[in-house]
Amino acid sequence: MPAFAPVGTQANVKTLEPRDLHEASVELILANTYHLYLRPGHELIERFGGLHAFMGWDRPILTDSGGYQVFSLAAQRKLDDDGVTFRSHIDGSVHRFTPERVMEVEQALGPDIAMVLDECPPPLDRAYNEDALARTHRWAERCKAAHTRGDQALFGIVQGGVFPDLRLQSVDFLTQLDFPGYAIGGLAVGETKEQMYATLDITCPAMPAQKPRYLMGVGAPEDIVEAVYRGVDFFDCVLPTRIARNGQLFTLDGRLNLRNAQYAEDHRPVQEDCSCYTCRTFSRAYLRHLYKAGEISALRLGTIHNIYFMQELMRQIRGAIAAGQLEMFRSTFLERFRITDQAKRHEQRELRAANRRP
Amino acid sequence: MPAFAPVGTQANVKTLEPRDLHEASVELILANTYHLYLRPGHELIERFGGLHAFMGWDRPILTDSGGYQVFSLAAQRKLDDDGVTFRSHIDGSVHRFTPERVMEVEQALGPDIAMVLDECPPPLDRAYNEDALARTHRWAERCKAAHTRGDQALFGIVQGGVFPDLRLQSVDFLTQLDFPGYAIGGLAVGETKEQMYATLDITCPAMPAQKPRYLMGVGAPEDIVEAVYRGVDFFDCVLPTRIARNGQLFTLDGRLNLRNAQYAEDHRPVQEDCSCYTCRTFSRAYLRHLYKAGEISALRLGTIHNIYFMQELMRQIRGAIAAGQLEMFRSTFLERFRITDQAKRHEQRELRAANRRP
Repeated sequence: MPAFAPVGTQANVKTLEPRDLHEASVELILANTYHLYLRPGHELIERFGGLHAFMGWDRPILTDSGGYQVFSLAAQRKLDDDGVTFRSHIDGSVHRFTPERVMEVEQALGPDIAMVLDECPPPLDRAYNEDALARTHRWAERCKAAHTRGDQALFGIVQGGVFPDLRLQSVDFLTQLDFPGYAIGGLAVGETKEQMYATLDITCPAMPAQKPRYLMGVGAPEDIVEAVYRGVDFFDCVLPTRIARNGQLFTLDGRLNLRNAQYAEDHRPVQEDCSCYTCRTFSRAYLRHLYKAGEISALRLGTIHNIYFMQELMRQIRGAIAAGQLEMFRSTFLERFRITDQAKRHEQRELRAANRRP
Repeated sequence: MPAFAPVGTQANVKTLEPRDLHEASVELILANTYHLYLRPGHELIERFGGLHAFMGWDRPILTDSGGYQVFSLAAQRKLDDDGVTFRSHIDGSVHRFTPERVMEVEQALGPDIAMVLDECPPPLDRAYNEDALARTHRWAERCKAAHTRGDQALFGIVQGGVFPDLRLQSVDFLTQLDFPGYAIGGLAVGETKEQMYATLDITCPAMPAQKPRYLMGVGAPEDIVEAVYRGVDFFDCVLPTRIARNGQLFTLDGRLNLRNAQYAEDHRPVQEDCSCYTCRTFSRAYLRHLYKAGEISALRLGTIHNIYFMQELMRQIRGAIAAGQLEMFRSTFLERFRITDQAKRHEQRELRAANRRP
């Protein structure tokens, strides 16, 4: 079951086409409600038959609720208990999201999985999390009541920062609303990896056993392995696509930065035995040349590899689970996959940038 | 025989991969000696087995000689009768191209067709053309003498601006050197389309009948049709790829600018019945959304279409020639293909920009 959803913010996984995603065996992608509501508009997409038809993607789509982006991207925002009023980062126009409005937008967009409107406070701020959690829970109730589309699953989102009691309270409240699946929100936005894992240690066991568990915004390979080990089923994250555009490519030994001079005459593919088009066709030296020369193709070829790498990782995780060897896989993978401090800092920087820039 | 070569300046047709070019039935691409000499260096490419191996392209490659780019792109240049000294536009380093040095570079790069070093003066400047022509002819002799690679065809370049006597003098001189093929240089860089066609009317009939004729830097569909009609065999140009990145896509009715609001809800493909991936998969509305949203994928999907369109045009031209109906094809095509003044201005601007910017 464990799966990774590449992010197609604006109804497009950056630099890739549906056929590329098929080639990588991608089964699920995420699109962003906030962006698509603003441009080209959910009503236009609905008139085209929904997101699948509009973007030419015939497999499952998940949309977030836009709540997170309103707080991280919108030019201005004003929150009240009923909803949030904000200015578009594109043209400054004023808009309002309430739970009911977001359900209208997501039902028009037509993904297979929609998310409730929630608030995503800084994970270490206790008072903010207490205050936001009550509102997030009322919004979840209102989303559930407003959601009518039978062919679309509406997921609840567990919040509560890094605070065990708040997380458990959130699981308890949302479980009673009986959603078909649950997300864990508010992580990978400022806490340490250890705090993230500890929060999963508390949260996952309390969640309904038979329903899918989705960890939002997490996508570093080591975090995915750790989270699956703790009971998470699926993930989305901009990390693999975003760092690819900076020349950072995944290998089983960790990340390599193709812009480095050491790859200038490297005849090897990015990862030996990788079956992606990039590794089947090009040397590290050629890819480095494309990055250094500012060729758009570099961004795409890097993205093809990183997405393929993630899907291959998920396939291996599923295989390990099926064979009852997840624990062994975890230790083998993590022993080899080198996470440098530089890579960690880069990851934090990239995720922060992704939150600021659309 | 008529063929169009997309331009892969830095050993990459911008936004495309070899498999995309295969899908469009591209048989020949051009790469730029000046760029590849500076970055990553012809010696590195030679150590990788030449351009074909380096860039993963197994069909014919043509390299220009770099002369044109030295004059249009280099940060500084100083010409003498023996060669030209210039500063790199990348890092300001000083380099020198002589006929012998350029042959060394092109033989290391290893294309199927190499071009002699030439000078490409403004086509309307008589005195400049007279002066440059003598030098270009001496350089052609020296290139021919220095070229030793048996598996590579070295083409001569006919110069002479828009001046019939200079063009005929150039054809005469170069024909005596007995190159395996001949290019017509110095057009599409400032003269009117009528002046270009008139120059072809004079030049083509004087060229050797059994050897390929290559019109350099020409790629507007209407110019290609007119030039084939006048006896040209093949072409290279950045136009189809470059305008695609601005949202200008070819249709049989002329160009359309996908950024225009009129396409916001247009369900049709760019060109009805076009078999390219872009037209098979996406609506104009979706493509417009990608352009407006600043998605890199837009640049690529537009390029896929424009290159496919050019190859389809060449296929139809070859079919018309085989059927003895080129004249009818020409009038039918040109009657339908609308060339607006705006498109003409845009084309001039784009080609000028391509000459300035690497």
